[in-house]
Amino acid sequence: LEPIIQFELSKEYLDKLNEAIANSDVAFIRETMDGVNPNDITAVLEEFNPDDSKYVIDQLEREVGAEIISSLEEDTRKVFLKKFSNKEVAQFLEYLDSDDAADILNELPLQAKRDTFNHIKNEEKAEHILELLRYDEDSAGGLMAKEFIKANVNWKVKHCIEEIRRQAENVEKVYSVYVVDDRNHLLGTISLKKLLLADDDKKIEAIYNDDVISVITFVEATEVAAIIQKYDLDALPVVNVHGKLVGRITVDDIIDVITESADQERQMMAGIAEDVEEDDSLWVLTRARLPWLIIGMIGGIFGARIIGIFEGDILRLAQIAFFIPLIGATGGNVGIQSSSIIVQSLANKSVFEESTFNRLMKVLGVAIINGVVLGVIVFGISYMVMDSQDFYLAGIVAISLFLVVILASFTGTITPLILDKFDINPAIASGPFITTANDLLGLGIYFSMVHFMYPF
Amino acid sequence: LEPIIQFELSKEYLDKLNEAIANSDVAFIRETMDGVNPNDITAVLEEFNPDDSKYVIDQLEREVGAEIISSLEEDTRKVFLKKFSNKEVAQFLEYLDSDDAADILNELPLQAKRDTFNHIKNEEKAEHILELLRYDEDSAGGLMAKEFIKANVNWKVKHCIEEIRRQAENVEKVYSVYVVDDRNHLLGTISLKKLLLADDDKKIEAIYNDDVISVITFVEATEVAAIIQKYDLDALPVVNVHGKLVGRITVDDIIDVITESADQERQMMAGIAEDVEEDDSLWVLTRARLPWLIIGMIGGIFGARIIGIFEGDILRLAQIAFFIPLIGATGGNVGIQSSSIIVQSLANKSVFEESTFNRLMKVLGVAIINGVVLGVIVFGISYMVMDSQDFYLAGIVAISLFLVVILASFTGTITPLILDKFDINPAIASGPFITTANDLLGLGIYFSMVHFMYPF
Repeated sequence: LEPIIQFELSKEYLDKLNEAIANSDVAFIRETMDGVNPNDITAVLEEFNPDDSKYVIDQLEREVGAEIISSLEEDTRKVFLKKFSNKEVAQFLEYLDSDDAADILNELPLQAKRDTFNHIKNEEKAEHILELLRYDEDSAGGLMAKEFIKANVNWKVKHCIEEIRRQAENVEKVYSVYVVDDRNHLLGTISLKKLLLADDDKKIEAIYNDDVISVITFVEATEVAAIIQKYDLDALPVVNVHGKLVGRITVDDIIDVITESADQERQMMAGIAEDVEEDDSLWVLTRARLPWLIIGMIGGIFGARIIGIFEGDILRLAQIAFFIPLIGATGGNVGIQSSSIIVQSLANKSVFEESTFNRLMKVLGVAIINGVVLGVIVFGISYMVMDSQDFYLAGIVAISLFLVVILASFTGTITPLILDKFDINPAIASGPFITTANDLLGLGIYFSMVHFMYPF
Repeated sequence: LEPIIQFELSKEYLDKLNEAIANSDVAFIRETMDGVNPNDITAVLEEFNPDDSKYVIDQLEREVGAEIISSLEEDTRKVFLKKFSNKEVAQFLEYLDSDDAADILNELPLQAKRDTFNHIKNEEKAEHILELLRYDEDSAGGLMAKEFIKANVNWKVKHCIEEIRRQAENVEKVYSVYVVDDRNHLLGTISLKKLLLADDDKKIEAIYNDDVISVITFVEATEVAAIIQKYDLDALPVVNVHGKLVGRITVDDIIDVITESADQERQMMAGIAEDVEEDDSLWVLTRARLPWLIIGMIGGIFGARIIGIFEGDILRLAQIAFFIPLIGATGGNVGIQSSSIIVQSLANKSVFEESTFNRLMKVLGVAIINGVVLGVIVFGISYMVMDSQDFYLAGIVAISLFLVVILASFTGTITPLILDKFDINPAIASGPFITTANDLLGLGIYFSMVHFMYPF
């Protein structure tokens, strides 16, 4: 009993397939892959080298090949498409929706992009792709496809169904039919369900739903995702600044937007500089990780300089060095907590934004409670548990910790807000940069406190 | 020109609405909210206290009220529903899809849950909800709704369309019609598009698509999300262990699963113990943050104990204390990077898993490169920039840093893999716990190296 009914992808099959490729056993490849969902074949090909993958794809129908290529990961696809001529790539693109075709074209080097485009024979498709290439990738225009079904508000249901019959050939998922006027202004929608249940002679005008949510081409991808999520939509029509219907965004593209932005946030929080995966090469992985490690290291060197200023104090009382990790770690932890709460807030923007002042007052409240609790605990522990019961040092550690909590809360709150103002992804603030800054801030506070307050 | 065509939600409107509530101006409330999307009204009500919100909802149709309640955030809804009698809540539930109704019931206290359920009058709805309450919230059964359209494989198109007319009343979004045999086994799907374009006398048997992807009720929510994403589905039929069709999961529920798991991961990485938002109360925010801060603090105290062992060394050479932040921060950063790469890998499980041994070998490779680069840089800087050009100390710092990078890479890789084996969310490994552990590990390595290798 299989929990999921899908293509059986086993190590054994992979071995046999490998053998078939080596022996040019075309019959085996075609037979075993016949009727298999292209997305499952993609999973197989991700395991092969580009040459073998090309060999397999060449044995399949162009349409199946197109779907496979479209569902490959971008990195794999980039390498893979180099194995095909521009003409062959163009043949694949003809089978894809205009938005997927435009995305793939955008991944190609400039010259290959032009040549490939010129090889697209279907003029309507070429025109659609050309239009989509104009839009920013991260805007509604960049997300939309030109494949959708529209009906004139003056048609009758019968005519509309005939038109759908004609148009539907190119549209895999219909969702709704968009209703426009003679000048292509978006007026509303009508569902297939309603068309199916309506009298043939009814006019569309009488039965369509004029309460339609749409976006203009320049709306940002994340905002589009928020709208689709808020209204539980499966597709969203896109209009130009004149209100004319120009495209449609489907929910599957929005899932990709959401997943990608979550991945990006994870990377920023973890201090990884580019989009990498575990199976990338050593070199790519190192390149993604080293920059942030070096920044952290430079922070560490600055830390050494700060502590260096107080070398004399340490030589008199080595115990002050004991609390360096405590101060640093607390500042880092508090900062990440604060910024991640703000990042979440910014991602799910409420209609009525709190003022920055109110936000900070609240942060201050939480920080005071946390700071007092941590300060009291650390005073108790460091006074009682440490070998020498140094009342002064315990007090200074506690007060420093309190101040670090307050300050790290502020920097953790302010930084993502500022980044967001400048249209920079605020998640950077939850990454190692702020942690490092809070580390240094903490060291400065702590050692200054010791230096000026401890009765050496 | 509005970039998004939606309900105009202004501070002024909110003030007027407040006034209308105070003056019991029912006409104003009904007029201004007539035809507005319930999701927009939700945004307004999130700003009000529960009593005022109840007053507004009481003025609207029950169906609109039901949609508003369904789209409220869980926290708000919990407080809000206390203002209504169990009977009133049941009236709302009658208008909702069975899955949403079951979710809301699950949020109620046990007694209220029973009473509310008993007040549901629609017997079919009650039966559906009762069935859904049996399933684990995070499984396919917990995600599915009982509202979908099915057709017998032996029907003709004409009969099928009549049946759709009958069933469709309760099904907001149709997507596909599911084709079953006489004993309700899922056989395939047929799209509305196909039905719309087919001859009335054709048998469903001749035109349905038997290549259907489905899941069994017990499949985990995250796996369901992965399947929907992989195959770009808008709905996924759910079968029981006998292959009988029992429900349908729609893509909007999957978007919620994806968003929630991203939110959860962010919280784990940031060391926040429960699901909080910026606008939660001081107390809730503190309760969510304090536990991890205390754990970090205990780590800091342990750090103090470790450094304490080497008090004598510090008194002889205070400079060894300078590099404490550097060692700690690098260990923390490397650990988070490593674990977040594994967490991402685990989230997008490839069909062919790498063996743990191969994974670790690769991690070791990256760690050696990073460790050598960081070691060399830190040796150069600390030797040249530090006031006393201490060749030995610079060397020991560099070697310690190298070792810390290697070890933190290992702990960062192994920990999420182990957590995942025990079905614990591996994202915990990217949170403060591992960072603290790596901090301590680093301190231990560094001070031992100094103690045994430095020629005091």
